[in-house]
Amino acid sequence: MTDCVFCKIIKGELPCAKIYEDEYAFAFLNLNPVNPGHSMVIPKKHAENMLLDHDGDLHHVMDTIRKIVPAIMKAVNADGWNLQVNNGKAAGQVIFHTHFHILPRFTNDGFKHWPHKEASMEERTKLAEKVKKFLS
Amino acid sequence: MTDCVFCKIIKGELPCAKIYEDEYAFAFLNLNPVNPGHSMVIPKKHAENMLLDHDGDLHHVMDTIRKIVPAIMKAVNADGWNLQVNNGKAAGQVIFHTHFHILPRFTNDGFKHWPHKEASMEERTKLAEKVKKFLS
Repeated sequence: MTDCVFCKIIKGELPCAKIYEDEYAFAFLNLNPVNPGHSMVIPKKHAENMLLDHDGDLHHVMDTIRKIVPAIMKAVNADGWNLQVNNGKAAGQVIFHTHFHILPRFTNDGFKHWPHKEASMEERTKLAEKVKKFLS
Repeated sequence: MTDCVFCKIIKGELPCAKIYEDEYAFAFLNLNPVNPGHSMVIPKKHAENMLLDHDGDLHHVMDTIRKIVPAIMKAVNADGWNLQVNNGKAAGQVIFHTHFHILPRFTNDGFKHWPHKEASMEERTKLAEKVKKFLS
């Protein structure tokens, strides 16, 4: 897509600190890292989010992530990592080309997870039935 | 694995609000939801995290996520969703069986992303070289 920042990065029309590239996937360091080594893994094929226009390319992205994360972890001496994908503006997506964030984490780096609250088995069962209705 | 909570859920030895199950994947509502519809998609095969003992099963998990998320979104009227995987204790992993969080999001639900800071092209290029050294 001509206006997509990530498509431009893939084509070399915008600069990036590239980590990896093959026929289907591309990986580079995030301009605004949450932690050192914060990277983006993207399918080369343009699609706005994970639910649209993807097929086997996300399988390949998954393999790419598993291939490059150990190298990122070693490079920054990380103790763990999060995989995160934001799908849709309401979820914090800013660039509308599917991208997988690799967030290296360090023991006691202080990042808090979002607040949870317990849901009763009854509430959950009711909602599960609703989801299954939409699935069938 | 006999002591794994998720293996027990898969085997039906612990209760859950199940959404979906097939030969390789299993999905259920989170006991402590961040937002309504917060779900977990897990491979049936036990592996501690995404980097260990997985093969094609994560491809199948990816397909399962793409299959069930639209139904979850409809059930709770979500505006977007995050995919998140915590790998390792330092990344907030609590149950050591790979699990993909599906977090439905709503416009202005108030969840903040982790703080970012900009990294210079020079810093990023230097780090990218280091990662590539470990990749080769």
